[in-house]
Amino acid sequence: MHTPVAPLALSLGDPAGIGPELIAEAWARREAESLPPFFIVGGASLLAQAAASRGLSVKVSNIAASAEAASVFASALPVLGDQDAPHIPGEPTADGARLALASLEGAVRLALDGSAGGVVTAPIAKAELANVGFAFPGQTEYLAAACGIAAEDAVMMLAGPSLRAVPITVHVAIADVPHMLTTDLICRRARVVATALRRDFGIASPRLALCGLNPHAGESGRMGREDVQVIAPAVDMLRSEGIDATGPHPADTMFAPHKRGSYDVALAMYHDQALIPLKALDFDSGVNVTLGLPIVRTSPDHGTAFDIAGKGIADPGAMIAAIRMAGEIARNRARQGISGA
Amino acid sequence: MHTPVAPLALSLGDPAGIGPELIAEAWARREAESLPPFFIVGGASLLAQAAASRGLSVKVSNIAASAEAASVFASALPVLGDQDAPHIPGEPTADGARLALASLEGAVRLALDGSAGGVVTAPIAKAELANVGFAFPGQTEYLAAACGIAAEDAVMMLAGPSLRAVPITVHVAIADVPHMLTTDLICRRARVVATALRRDFGIASPRLALCGLNPHAGESGRMGREDVQVIAPAVDMLRSEGIDATGPHPADTMFAPHKRGSYDVALAMYHDQALIPLKALDFDSGVNVTLGLPIVRTSPDHGTAFDIAGKGIADPGAMIAAIRMAGEIARNRARQGISGA
Repeated sequence: MHTPVAPLALSLGDPAGIGPELIAEAWARREAESLPPFFIVGGASLLAQAAASRGLSVKVSNIAASAEAASVFASALPVLGDQDAPHIPGEPTADGARLALASLEGAVRLALDGSAGGVVTAPIAKAELANVGFAFPGQTEYLAAACGIAAEDAVMMLAGPSLRAVPITVHVAIADVPHMLTTDLICRRARVVATALRRDFGIASPRLALCGLNPHAGESGRMGREDVQVIAPAVDMLRSEGIDATGPHPADTMFAPHKRGSYDVALAMYHDQALIPLKALDFDSGVNVTLGLPIVRTSPDHGTAFDIAGKGIADPGAMIAAIRMAGEIARNRARQGISGA
Repeated sequence: MHTPVAPLALSLGDPAGIGPELIAEAWARREAESLPPFFIVGGASLLAQAAASRGLSVKVSNIAASAEAASVFASALPVLGDQDAPHIPGEPTADGARLALASLEGAVRLALDGSAGGVVTAPIAKAELANVGFAFPGQTEYLAAACGIAAEDAVMMLAGPSLRAVPITVHVAIADVPHMLTTDLICRRARVVATALRRDFGIASPRLALCGLNPHAGESGRMGREDVQVIAPAVDMLRSEGIDATGPHPADTMFAPHKRGSYDVALAMYHDQALIPLKALDFDSGVNVTLGLPIVRTSPDHGTAFDIAGKGIADPGAMIAAIRMAGEIARNRARQGISGA
């Protein structure tokens, strides 16, 4: 039994990237993959052409309101709004970036007012968006601002069939990681993670495993003091609050097969510590989820891939997984009486 | 056709760890795994008891010289030398550490004088060895000194079925990595790697992929300058020397399945960048090879595992892979007329 939730709003991503074709492919596989109903904000002709470029027969239907999406979804790909762009794969333009931005803003607005059960964002090109005035380092930071949440409390989690991983620091040079990493920051993000795993993923008592920063978690301070002075106190603090946190664990063995079953999420101290194992293990099915937002937001964990756009070879696994996960989170929230926003 | 090489010398590792039982298990599987002949330096009764603890029927035979190992190997586990210790799994002692050290020194000596085709070292406990006067941070550094090689030129490579990876800096705090990483160090180690892949692994023109240090390889200097100022010049320098080096590549995607086929070895900038993907993908079959030595040296890429020693559950995959790889390198060298030392 599914608790009914509003259909998901998908943003197009950069029209020259692989987003539109993967959305079309996901719709084509909606039954085989048991995907929840979704609609796209803008891009009706773009989506039709992107579908054709993959040899897919996809009927695109304009809808006037998100409420129509559920009934249309079985027979056509529902599109809300009339912004559009030509399908020129691999050649990003300023007009394309503006469409990507309008689609993202529209999808978020619909989720915030409850018309959509959540948002799934297709990949954008950060440099292109910056050129048309987008003032955020990425979509996650935009979402935090759009939802009125502090950037520290909107937490990126990567999730695949093998692993869930959260980088505590994200787009930061390695040289800056040691001093950006504080006990407060770790605890603040870990609390968001623990709450979200309970609320959104239905894990009653989530097990958080914290990676060490240094090799072998510093060997009791012999290689760097951060593991002893910053991470261990965070583990103690979190445990005192009733959160099942452990560590710091040596990061090199934490992602080995026999260790992965011992926690529900790995908290990595920097970008590559989380993303290397996730992409090594789950490249074609990794989902980027933003934890801590009032709205549901997922995204496939890959970029625009301009180099293969339009060639019909981009793998839809991550897009399909992102749509499925957004649906599951929305249903979990609905069951608990938590509205979309 | 195998070019004949001298039998391999195995060191016992810490007698309280999983080394002796895995050596016994490897010998028991010598035919199924097509392992080259080997002998152990010391530990005859220890090995017999360790074998019994795994329920293995292993006949141990003392030999007087390494030359006897090949003929004995088919019917018994050959042991050279009479140092020994009781089998008390999980309880390391100073006497045990002295045996581990004597076994290591003996195996290396036999490889250096050509009596052994190479050395496979079982895991030691660094803290225990330090207590009995071993003045090296690990076995790799000891081997460099024993062979009269500068520490920079003895290069640790981790190799599994999915991946070969070399950390350019190794047991170094993350905060120290950015300033320890120099174009010279990268080039020096990369040259050792390129030579070894040709000579020891039979790869005519090895492809070296260098990881970026910072997220997304720094995005053209926006997140840290090392990728632009230190790593890119190393790639240029290596290419000017005729070495097929590429990078710096964003480290998070480099280990994804579709990327791993594009290089023969990944050069990581720090310990966990190499060891996280290796252990995530190949935990039970990872081999630690020391490149750049006059002698052949491999080791299973795991520790003493005192917690599971004697319980019969330690996986012998990495030990078997280490023995097989040492045999292959020794044969490749013999084919080229390169002696053991």
